[in-house]
Amino acid sequence: MCRWLAYSGTPIRLEELLYEPRFSLIDQSMHSRLGVETTNGDGVGVGWYGVDAPPLAEPALFRGTGPAWSDLNLRELARSTVSPLFLAHIRASTGTPVQQTNCHPFRHGNWLWLHNGCIREFARLKRDLVLAIDPALYPSIAGSTDSEVMFYLALTYGLRDRPALAVERMAGLVEYLGRAHGVENPLQMTVATTDGDRVWCFRYSSEGHSRSLFYSTEMSALVALYPENANLRRLSEETRLVVSEPLGELEGAWQPVPESSYGVIQKGDDELGRFEPVEP
Amino acid sequence: MCRWLAYSGTPIRLEELLYEPRFSLIDQSMHSRLGVETTNGDGVGVGWYGVDAPPLAEPALFRGTGPAWSDLNLRELARSTVSPLFLAHIRASTGTPVQQTNCHPFRHGNWLWLHNGCIREFARLKRDLVLAIDPALYPSIAGSTDSEVMFYLALTYGLRDRPALAVERMAGLVEYLGRAHGVENPLQMTVATTDGDRVWCFRYSSEGHSRSLFYSTEMSALVALYPENANLRRLSEETRLVVSEPLGELEGAWQPVPESSYGVIQKGDDELGRFEPVEP
Amino acid sequence: MCRWLAYSGTPIRLEELLYEPRFSLIDQSMHSRLGVETTNGDGVGVGWYGVDAPPLAEPALFRGTGPAWSDLNLRELARSTVSPLFLAHIRASTGTPVQQTNCHPFRHGNWLWLHNGCIREFARLKRDLVLAIDPALYPSIAGSTDSEVMFYLALTYGLRDRPALAVERMAGLVEYLGRAHGVENPLQMTVATTDGDRVWCFRYSSEGHSRSLFYSTEMSALVALYPENANLRRLSEETRLVVSEPLGELEGAWQPVPESSYGVIQKGDDELGRFEPVEP
Amino acid sequence: MCRWLAYSGTPIRLEELLYEPRFSLIDQSMHSRLGVETTNGDGVGVGWYGVDAPPLAEPALFRGTGPAWSDLNLRELARSTVSPLFLAHIRASTGTPVQQTNCHPFRHGNWLWLHNGCIREFARLKRDLVLAIDPALYPSIAGSTDSEVMFYLALTYGLRDRPALAVERMAGLVEYLGRAHGVENPLQMTVATTDGDRVWCFRYSSEGHSRSLFYSTEMSALVALYPENANLRRLSEETRLVVSEPLGELEGAWQPVPESSYGVIQKGDDELGRFEPVEP
Repeated sequence: MCRWLAYSGTPIRLEELLYEPRFSLIDQSMHSRLGVETTNGDGVGVGWYGVDAPPLAEPALFRGTGPAWSDLNLRELARSTVSPLFLAHIRASTGTPVQQTNCHPFRHGNWLWLHNGCIREFARLKRDLVLAIDPALYPSIAGSTDSEVMFYLALTYGLRDRPALAVERMAGLVEYLGRAHGVENPLQMTVATTDGDRVWCFRYSSEGHSRSLFYSTEMSALVALYPENANLRRLSEETRLVVSEPLGELEGAWQPVPESSYGVIQKGDDELGRFEPVEP
Repeated sequence: MCRWLAYSGTPIRLEELLYEPRFSLIDQSMHSRLGVETTNGDGVGVGWYGVDAPPLAEPALFRGTGPAWSDLNLRELARSTVSPLFLAHIRASTGTPVQQTNCHPFRHGNWLWLHNGCIREFARLKRDLVLAIDPALYPSIAGSTDSEVMFYLALTYGLRDRPALAVERMAGLVEYLGRAHGVENPLQMTVATTDGDRVWCFRYSSEGHSRSLFYSTEMSALVALYPENANLRRLSEETRLVVSEPLGELEGAWQPVPESSYGVIQKGDDELGRFEPVEP
Repeated sequence: MCRWLAYSGTPIRLEELLYEPRFSLIDQSMHSRLGVETTNGDGVGVGWYGVDAPPLAEPALFRGTGPAWSDLNLRELARSTVSPLFLAHIRASTGTPVQQTNCHPFRHGNWLWLHNGCIREFARLKRDLVLAIDPALYPSIAGSTDSEVMFYLALTYGLRDRPALAVERMAGLVEYLGRAHGVENPLQMTVATTDGDRVWCFRYSSEGHSRSLFYSTEMSALVALYPENANLRRLSEETRLVVSEPLGELEGAWQPVPESSYGVIQKGDDELGRFEPVEP
Repeated sequence: MCRWLAYSGTPIRLEELLYEPRFSLIDQSMHSRLGVETTNGDGVGVGWYGVDAPPLAEPALFRGTGPAWSDLNLRELARSTVSPLFLAHIRASTGTPVQQTNCHPFRHGNWLWLHNGCIREFARLKRDLVLAIDPALYPSIAGSTDSEVMFYLALTYGLRDRPALAVERMAGLVEYLGRAHGVENPLQMTVATTDGDRVWCFRYSSEGHSRSLFYSTEMSALVALYPENANLRRLSEETRLVVSEPLGELEGAWQPVPESSYGVIQKGDDELGRFEPVEP
């Protein structure tokens, strides 16, 4: 089981989230407590947008193939990089090779995408899924994971214009092809994707029993709960985190994302909507 | 430009060919003298069959992503492994990522395959080429190179039954699709492939100006030329090498493989035939 | 906590021990059940002697820096290599960098050495320990671990002539310098070392509470217990395994090595002796 | 032969120097034209200070063990990082292992150090050199290169207080021990070191025939020569580069550092002095 986080808000140093909380992402890679796979030593990745980056700027990527806990370059990067918007991911392979092109997040232009979960019996479904990808996008596929195929399907279905619908159509295709090939419960996913401005997060599985996903409580509510916490007061009201598992132990800080739903982190009010696969 | 060799004959220690000749394969990776790319630091691979391996046994593979010259595990492997039949390859990437799944040789069951050259504008042709691969073979594609796609096309076209024809059909498809997409001279290749018993080597390019390929002179002729050379006398009459560039400086040891032709190394007389792409 | 295994006896394919038993070494790296560190993803190594290798032949080494469970080259090597005598080790770093030169086993001439445990506060003791190494051996130190320093100290103290005494003198120096620097319980170790003929195994710790070590029951006794087990009948009476943790679940197959003792696996009767550090 | 570059001045994006000039550092790793070793595929490193970093802040490091030309993480880092002061290095090993702890620059507190050249017969001199390092610094040595030993000797001899003298004393020790051990011309070096404020560069060899080193002409002079060059006008008068080989082809842009001399890049006038080893 992979681990991930998405951060949007007041620019912070990456290490504050990746290394410092008691149950940080890197620490999780050593002691993943709830996961199916016992370790997350199959690669790590971070994608981040610069402070004051222009609209549609391509984010930067760091992707390592070793265990996150011993990646010195990641440690240095996290110490020296400040960002208002970033995604981080720690991988436990479900079978595809451990290589940089299989590490999340995946990038296409100004978009990033990461995924925890799987397409079941992906080897059997892969060809039909790949055939549905826009031929103009096809050459950009660099690795061999189900997660990257999901990204390019979503791009094919209009991720850049109507993101939630595009992901629903991607999920619908997986459900449809799964049924056609006799694969039970073909899709299990939590996903985060961003264009550098807004962040969309999804929680869904065919069987209605999806991997965990949490978002952080509004900052004003947290500050009211913990008026003495200087760290919280540094963060703008707009600041929001989404995580595969809660970081730290602040009571009241985390809300579960409901089954079969999605959220949008954006300026002004965030959104939460129902997620329903749209079959072809 | 990649470098490769194929050896078949009296079992020898891999290091005798990979490290010891004055212009060995590893040395070539440091000083590639004739190549287009100036170095070959993008990965290395060896595939070998065991001494007395049963028919149809899967060969073993070693594939490293660093430069060959500093790969200590390869050095140890070459020192400790004896084989009657092996292929070795040193990679200079023409663009696809440096990762283990892109290192040659590629393996499928008892077959190995390696390639020097390229499919020009592969990104544009890739989707159509991949669509032509047998859907049952499709899930076995692990990397992202043109070379591996060529292998699976050849398997699709009957490599296991009529190897030379299968490779001609693969080349014909590349020529056909190249023309359809307006790609001039789409194919450049030297290829070696083996089932663990025989070895097939191919030299072809659309433009009729293929990368170099050489095969070793018959051992009896070489021993007659160099009666004092004990190394040569150890090797059986059946022993044969095919190389992208001559190893060592033994006058008379190497014969160029002609343009647009293929050879078969096998028990009894070897064969040399004309190679002609067969379009679909 | 590292894991290791020493095998001596009837030549077997490495994979039979590294991959096939229910609790094999590689499996342990994913699910290390009893260890202090939760995973063993910091490197792997195997050192082996060839079948019919001449006396004093240098063994071969494979050392990888990634997690053992995803090392495809190790998987291939284990499948293709048969050996009558080999050591294997899976590393969980206690702080020194993850690099090939820090992976066990270490080699010097025909000798191999591996270690589970640590010299406590090694950074403080290291300079004095290294100063005690024979200046002629000093340039051979390639990595930065306590384990390799222990090996070169043992070589300095006569490992090649009186192995058990040399290791006792090494341990005595660690105890002596630990006391001088105010380090409590400076040494924790299980060690295996071999010259390609005999294997010496050690279990010792300053505090008298050493990490676990087990040796396999004599083959004749095992065959008597399990007359129907064909696997056991293949193995010569001389065959012996020493492991940091039992492999498989064969009742009666494993005997604990007592605290502060050492064993010698050799032709004829094996030995078991008391281990007592000899201070300078 | 390694390649390196030191930059100090107007903050710039790393990629402008590492990737964009016609003969950039990365390009040099592919086509090193003047070097002894034919390629520089044995690792790469960059150390940089942040914009507006406080005095004595620890710089950040990136060090990769593969060839620089295929290091995607370095490419991304260079694109996303702006710095007023950084060192970059591309390694061609002269024998020590290819591992992160052997990649330049080396760091100690707020200091960085990099080196091109060698201590001849380092294996023979190493023990005596290491013994001369301050025991309090000894545990910080992480790798196995001559270059890192030179750094810790310089720190031992007062690099933080009188940098030029400290390096002269380091060189004097190498000369002295070389003579004692019968090593002819023991030292060959160009070195750059910085505390985050000033940069010291050294060119010296025992034989008086040192590897090349160049510094950039004063910006005002360059702007006078090339009044139409907008790139040059962006850079402050204080901006200075030191390089192992000239970048680009701007006539008049580069001055050779004389034999046996050192330079200091600092606010106000830079310095150039004579370098003379000081023996113990």
